[in-house]
Amino acid sequence: MKADIITIGDEILIGQIVDTNSAWMAQRLGEIGLSVRRKYSIGDRREEIVAAVEESLAASEVVLITGGLGPTKDDITKKVLAEIFHSTLVRHEETYARVERMMTARGIEFNALNQGQALVPECCTVLPNHKGTAPGMWFEREGRVVVSLPGVPFEMEALMTESVLPRLRSHFNLQSVVHRTAITYGLAESMLAERIAPWEDALPDYLHLAYLPSPSQLRLRLSAYDVDAEQATQEIDAQFEALMPLLGDFFVGWESDTLQSVVAEMLTARGETLAAAESCTGGALSAKFTAMSGASEYFWGAVVSYDNSVKENVLGVSHSDLEQYGAVSEQVARQMAEGVRRVCGTTYGVATTGIAGPTGGSADKPVGTVWTAVAGPQGTVAQMKVHGRLRAQNIDRAASAAINLLRLYIKKIG
Amino acid sequence: MKADIITIGDEILIGQIVDTNSAWMAQRLGEIGLSVRRKYSIGDRREEIVAAVEESLAASEVVLITGGLGPTKDDITKKVLAEIFHSTLVRHEETYARVERMMTARGIEFNALNQGQALVPECCTVLPNHKGTAPGMWFEREGRVVVSLPGVPFEMEALMTESVLPRLRSHFNLQSVVHRTAITYGLAESMLAERIAPWEDALPDYLHLAYLPSPSQLRLRLSAYDVDAEQATQEIDAQFEALMPLLGDFFVGWESDTLQSVVAEMLTARGETLAAAESCTGGALSAKFTAMSGASEYFWGAVVSYDNSVKENVLGVSHSDLEQYGAVSEQVARQMAEGVRRVCGTTYGVATTGIAGPTGGSADKPVGTVWTAVAGPQGTVAQMKVHGRLRAQNIDRAASAAINLLRLYIKKIG
Repeated sequence: MKADIITIGDEILIGQIVDTNSAWMAQRLGEIGLSVRRKYSIGDRREEIVAAVEESLAASEVVLITGGLGPTKDDITKKVLAEIFHSTLVRHEETYARVERMMTARGIEFNALNQGQALVPECCTVLPNHKGTAPGMWFEREGRVVVSLPGVPFEMEALMTESVLPRLRSHFNLQSVVHRTAITYGLAESMLAERIAPWEDALPDYLHLAYLPSPSQLRLRLSAYDVDAEQATQEIDAQFEALMPLLGDFFVGWESDTLQSVVAEMLTARGETLAAAESCTGGALSAKFTAMSGASEYFWGAVVSYDNSVKENVLGVSHSDLEQYGAVSEQVARQMAEGVRRVCGTTYGVATTGIAGPTGGSADKPVGTVWTAVAGPQGTVAQMKVHGRLRAQNIDRAASAAINLLRLYIKKIG
Repeated sequence: MKADIITIGDEILIGQIVDTNSAWMAQRLGEIGLSVRRKYSIGDRREEIVAAVEESLAASEVVLITGGLGPTKDDITKKVLAEIFHSTLVRHEETYARVERMMTARGIEFNALNQGQALVPECCTVLPNHKGTAPGMWFEREGRVVVSLPGVPFEMEALMTESVLPRLRSHFNLQSVVHRTAITYGLAESMLAERIAPWEDALPDYLHLAYLPSPSQLRLRLSAYDVDAEQATQEIDAQFEALMPLLGDFFVGWESDTLQSVVAEMLTARGETLAAAESCTGGALSAKFTAMSGASEYFWGAVVSYDNSVKENVLGVSHSDLEQYGAVSEQVARQMAEGVRRVCGTTYGVATTGIAGPTGGSADKPVGTVWTAVAGPQGTVAQMKVHGRLRAQNIDRAASAAINLLRLYIKKIG
C-alpha cells in the first residue's frame, strides 16, 4: 500500500523554507504500514496542483497534501481541490464558530480573511483543527483517499495524530511494516560498512539494510516488508544482537536515541547532574540537552565563555595558561570543565573550546580544531579532534564529540 | 526556463532525514533565473529513478539530482543514470587518484567500496568534488541537462557553486529574475495582510507578492519574472519604500537578515558588547548569535541558569525574590539580565525565563509563559508573552522575543 506526499507552496519551491513536514509524515505513515512512493513539492499554481494530485492518485492509494491553506491571496489549494472533486466551496459552520472563538481569545479581529478559513469543498469530510484556523479535509474517489492539511507543522502533526492516521488505518485495514534502527557514532560510513560486511552479507533476503548518515551519527536500519510482523521482529532483534560485538562503543542506542538522550537517561537513572562550559559551541551543546523535556532533572546550567575574560572571571581558567597555551588547548578545556563543575556544583562538567571558523585558524591549529573535556568523580579527561571547515558543522560536531566523551566517561564508571 | 530537483534516498522517503538540499538548490537556481517547477523525493529504486528523471526531462530544461552516490550497496543512482543515458560505467582516473589521496590523508583504507566511487557513466562530464568521494556528473540530451550530485550538503553546495551554476548560466544564456524580501517580526500573517491590504491591492500586475511565514518571522517577497531587471529592481525598491511607514517597528531587515543578524550589525557598528542569561531557552539564544561568524566581536558569553542555584550563585538573583515571585517572573528576569551584564562586564545583558513545557505550567503561569528582559545603559526593561504549548517552539519564540526586545532597546537609544 503506497502513499504520495505533496507539499504546496512557492516558499518551499523557491527554497525560502525547508520542508520538515514530509519527513515527519513519512515516518508516521511508515509506522502504520504505508510506504511513501514519492514526495512532490510544487508551487501555488492551479495546473501544478491538478497535475500532481492526479498523478499521485493514479499511482498511490493515499495522497497527503500540506500547505496552501493560509488566509491570504496566494493560497489556492482549497479552490483547486474543489475543482478536482467537482465540488463548490461552502461555509462549514463548526469551523466558522471555532475560528471566531480562536480570534476572539487571541484578541485578533475576525475579519473577512479569517472568515474565509471556514469555507470548504462541499464533498469533503472536515477534520477539525484545534491548533489553527485551516481545517483538514478528507476526500475519497474510488476508494482512494486525498487529505489536505495545513502547512504549519504543529497543526499538521495534531491533525495527523488525532484524525488522519486512525482513519487511514481503518479505511485500508492496514498491515504493519517492521523497522528497527541502531544508532552509531564515531565511524564513517565506509569504515562501518567494511567492519560489518560479513554480517551484512549473511542477512536473510527479506531484510533490507540501510545506512542513514546524519551530521552527528550514522544509523543502521533493518526493514522487513510484507512479512509476518512477529517473526520479522524476532529475526531483526536476533540480527542486531549478533551485530553488537562488532559495534562495541560505537553503538549509542536505538531508533530516535541521540548521544544526548542516552546521556540524559544515564544521568537521570543515576541521580547525577551536569553543567557545561562552552566556548566554540556557543550554547549549542546546552541547547541539545535543554531541547529535551525533563532536562531540569539533571542539567543545572552552563557558562558560555566566548570571551577569554569570561573564561577567567566566571570559570577560573588560569590567565597564564590562556596566554601560554591559547584558548584552544588541552589545559584550558580541562580547566573549563573543572571550573563549571565547581561553579555549578554538579557531578560532571563538560567543556568545548575550538576554532569554529571560517576565520581564526592557524597552521598549528587549523579551523575545525576542537578540544573537549569532561570533569567528574573519576578526574578529568580531554580529547582533541580536527573537524571540517564549515562553521555550523564544526559547532555541531564539537558538541557531539563532547557529549560522546561524557557518554564514554559515565559508561566506564559503570 | 524551468528546473526540476530530484532527491534520491530511502532515508528521505521514510522520513529519517529532512531534505535541506533542495531548498538551498532552489534558492541558488532562482538567483540565476531558473525557477523550480517541481521537487521530487524518491527511493533508491530503479523504476522510480527512471520515471522521475524521464518525467522531469520532459517538463523542464534542467534536472538536478542529489543523493544515492554513497559507496554502499543501497546506492544505485549512478548505475541507473548509466542505463538511462545508454552508457557504461568506466573508471575515471582523476577521481580514482583523488579519492585515494583523500583516504590516505584521513588514514582510511582505500578499499573496494571507496574505489567504486571512481566509476562513472562514460558519456558524462565529470565535475570534480573536492570535499568528498562522489564526483558530480553532467549529462546532456537534446540540449537539456541532467546533473547528478552527492547528497552530503557541503559537497553538493561546493559542486553547485564551483561547477554547476556557472555551467548552467553559460549553457542556457540565462536572464535573471528579480526578488526582494522584507523581513518582519511581531505580526501574525492575517494582521499583517489586513494592515498592508491597500498597498498590496495597488501593486502593479507584474509584481508578485508572497507571504512567507517561518517560526520567528514573516517575510514579504516581491518578485518580477521575465521583465527588464533594472526597471523591475527600481519598481520593487519604490514599492518597499512606500510600505515602510505601514510596517514601522515590525520591519526587521532584508533578504537573509534575522533578528540576531540585525542586532549583531548594530552591536558591531556601535562597538558594544552583549551577554545572555538563559533559563527556558537553555543555550538556544546564545547559539543564535554564536552560529554567526564574527560573534566573538560583540558576544562575550552567557550563563545558562537552568537550576535556581545557578541563578543565585552565578547571576546573583535574590533568593527571596525567587521564593516570593518564582523563577518565571519579571523580578527574576530583570535580575538575570542585570546579573549577567555585571558578571560578564558587557554593554547589554539579555535574559529569558519561562515555562517551555510540556510540563511545569500552572493556571497562573501556563506553559508558554516567558519573561524576557534587557539591561543596558538606559536601565532595564522587561516583557511578558505567552507563547504556545510546544517545547521547541516556545524555546525558539522566547529567544526571538528576547532578541527583539534588545533590538528595539538599542534602536530607541538611536
